[in-house]
Amino acid sequence: MPAQYDIVIVGAGIMGVASAYHLKKNNPGIKVLVVERYGAAGQGNTGRSNAMFRNTFSSSDNQILSNSSIDFYTHVQEELKVDIGLQKIGYEWLMNEKQLSRSEPFLEGMEKNGVEITRHGKDDLRRLLPSMVTEFGSSSEAALMELPSVDGGVFGPKCGRLDPDKLVRFYAGEFIKAGGEFAFNTEARALVVGPSKRLGIEGEPLVWQDFKVEGVSARGAIDGIIRAETIVLAGGAWENELLEPIGIECHAKSKKRQLFSIQAEGRKLEGLLRSDGFNPQGLLPLVILPKSGVHFKPVSEENAFWVACEDEVNRPFIDLPEHDLDRYTAERKYYERSVYPILVSYFPEFKDSRVKAMWAGLYSYNTIDNLPFVFREKNLIVVGGDSGSGIMKGDSLGRVVNSLYREEGETTLYGGIPYRTSKLSFERRDVEREEWVI
Amino acid sequence: MPAQYDIVIVGAGIMGVASAYHLKKNNPGIKVLVVERYGAAGQGNTGRSNAMFRNTFSSSDNQILSNSSIDFYTHVQEELKVDIGLQKIGYEWLMNEKQLSRSEPFLEGMEKNGVEITRHGKDDLRRLLPSMVTEFGSSSEAALMELPSVDGGVFGPKCGRLDPDKLVRFYAGEFIKAGGEFAFNTEARALVVGPSKRLGIEGEPLVWQDFKVEGVSARGAIDGIIRAETIVLAGGAWENELLEPIGIECHAKSKKRQLFSIQAEGRKLEGLLRSDGFNPQGLLPLVILPKSGVHFKPVSEENAFWVACEDEVNRPFIDLPEHDLDRYTAERKYYERSVYPILVSYFPEFKDSRVKAMWAGLYSYNTIDNLPFVFREKNLIVVGGDSGSGIMKGDSLGRVVNSLYREEGETTLYGGIPYRTSKLSFERRDVEREEWVI
Repeated sequence: MPAQYDIVIVGAGIMGVASAYHLKKNNPGIKVLVVERYGAAGQGNTGRSNAMFRNTFSSSDNQILSNSSIDFYTHVQEELKVDIGLQKIGYEWLMNEKQLSRSEPFLEGMEKNGVEITRHGKDDLRRLLPSMVTEFGSSSEAALMELPSVDGGVFGPKCGRLDPDKLVRFYAGEFIKAGGEFAFNTEARALVVGPSKRLGIEGEPLVWQDFKVEGVSARGAIDGIIRAETIVLAGGAWENELLEPIGIECHAKSKKRQLFSIQAEGRKLEGLLRSDGFNPQGLLPLVILPKSGVHFKPVSEENAFWVACEDEVNRPFIDLPEHDLDRYTAERKYYERSVYPILVSYFPEFKDSRVKAMWAGLYSYNTIDNLPFVFREKNLIVVGGDSGSGIMKGDSLGRVVNSLYREEGETTLYGGIPYRTSKLSFERRDVEREEWVI
Repeated sequence: MPAQYDIVIVGAGIMGVASAYHLKKNNPGIKVLVVERYGAAGQGNTGRSNAMFRNTFSSSDNQILSNSSIDFYTHVQEELKVDIGLQKIGYEWLMNEKQLSRSEPFLEGMEKNGVEITRHGKDDLRRLLPSMVTEFGSSSEAALMELPSVDGGVFGPKCGRLDPDKLVRFYAGEFIKAGGEFAFNTEARALVVGPSKRLGIEGEPLVWQDFKVEGVSARGAIDGIIRAETIVLAGGAWENELLEPIGIECHAKSKKRQLFSIQAEGRKLEGLLRSDGFNPQGLLPLVILPKSGVHFKPVSEENAFWVACEDEVNRPFIDLPEHDLDRYTAERKYYERSVYPILVSYFPEFKDSRVKAMWAGLYSYNTIDNLPFVFREKNLIVVGGDSGSGIMKGDSLGRVVNSLYREEGETTLYGGIPYRTSKLSFERRDVEREEWVI
């Protein structure tokens, strides 16, 4: 028989484990269970993500949430000596004149808030990325695709990559050491709503009754209703499946995103991978091209590039009931027709390169402002809507969840940064909309 | 073979026919088709609604949109001499002290904007509604249900009811007279997206191509793709079904709402129905009780009351694929357990009254601010999210649709009222959130 918990957390992705860690650490006496559909933590969309991080956002809220999380992750790797694969290889945004001037107000905002950026002129870029095509002259193909020229770049040095499995394992391990519990291979099927005071009438809660979430109806390793005083929903792309049946809106919708791993075969591609001058690792940073958000990062240990694309155009929001991730497969033709033509136009060394692996996951978009949410409805706390940047804000969001649980108006983020707990709610939402989206 | 149209409108509910009317009237040369799943206009949720109207909103946007529409409907009935069943019987909100004082800022806002309201004190109410229970003393049932006392009321004289079928028939008839076309028994299955400039490449539109909505894929009386320069989506509760597959968010979700028709049998109930002192018709107004939004209106021609309830608690957002309205049936037990106990506590004459009919429809909630939206994405115009008050704003929204089509920054509402066309969009949304919800 499932026991009664103080807190049940649904989902062991980055949001779930970061929340679990901070809840258990700050409330050591409580009984906390994390329920997860897969056999281990981080096996859903967290493990399928590009796992990049940046502090270069236009929204000051995103700046604060990511900056503090990056500092915590750096602390974990450098001071706690836990390898989480963190490499500050940087982000390089490539733009034409028009894009540069449109970005200028955001860049000035970042500088004002202390977010480090470096502007690269054409000469810098010629030196740093000598093989890159910056002008297309009379190329009819480039004209057809309306490819912008590259007139400059913006570099973010406090951006980079980490290993999501290792990060999730750090949080999960610390949570278990502190006495927290996981129930793997256990799927949360529904949130169970009941009256605040049970009267023994059929059909409770009736319209005139107060209600709360009594627990989680689960299937798998645990079968039945797991009851808890507080439920934390950290279900990522699947949150709507649990919220819609009880009529709660979280303003998030999910879309498929794809990653393509390209082998760095040959001298030219290997040379690009090990582009010097950007970072101490002597690696290419994440490069964002000026068209359709096509971007690629070096994965030196695999001698590969991971290539992705901003994927909004005509891309359906997913059908909620289809929660089997294996249904969301990557499309080779999508790479060949939509991504590759852009990539090879700017970096001709990709010509005839080979896709050695590809996979897909789900982005959970907050469709209001592209910022995450953390809100409370009765005894239910919901965290999510991270719009593809959950890992880089995970630590901060876990702390906000803990403050919401403790009913603390102010959250202290890593580094002693104060952040108003209600800012990410919907009822008292007070955030700057994100405009600097990949 | 389906022809090419200038405009195809999806949906012949109030939004669709009001849009059709204003588009055709203001652009007489264009070819406009309205596609409708049912066999006639207004047979979906428009025909199943309570069809009440009010201008008493807290949001100045809602005040303007509804006030102007009510004036137009009054003009139709009184000056054009088309009977649309319009009766200004008024709304009477009953409240306790706490609710009254919470409402005061909204009421003052209404008065400031010229919205007529009358405050009723306890003595007024005793005179107007002598049978009403206003205090529950030591009743344990009232305590269990936490029923507020009635300490006062607010009356809106420019509120009332109309006949939605007759209103829809007016718009549809004028549209046909002007040369507009309907395709009934024709279901819009999908919006067809294509590239702005077709290149003949497989899989268009690719990520780097501009795209537009080429038409509507239909099934039924018309089978195939109906092409148009502009598509107007006025699908009410079903809009998400067409928007999600092309990845467009409209911030609307749907919930079932129910209506119960109670026979006014016996002297007491008939007396309540014909409560004098509120309106020239000598009828009870729509009465809103101070608990759970339970409200009822007189339907004198049926010698009945229609009873409804604010229906948010634990009520699921609907499953999009279930678009057969007949699946959404009214629940007798819901009335008996949730609605009736409240109703009979305030108006004991309902004791042992008989439900003679009941039905259900779908509310399309705008989950951001409870206000409707009218927005344009490429050549697609979307109108909806009326949150249960579409009929009372339908005329104004049809005019905004026309202005968006004509790319006019300012819409002239009935009565010469100017309204900024972009206010109801999402990109440049600029509306006061509605707080005065039933």
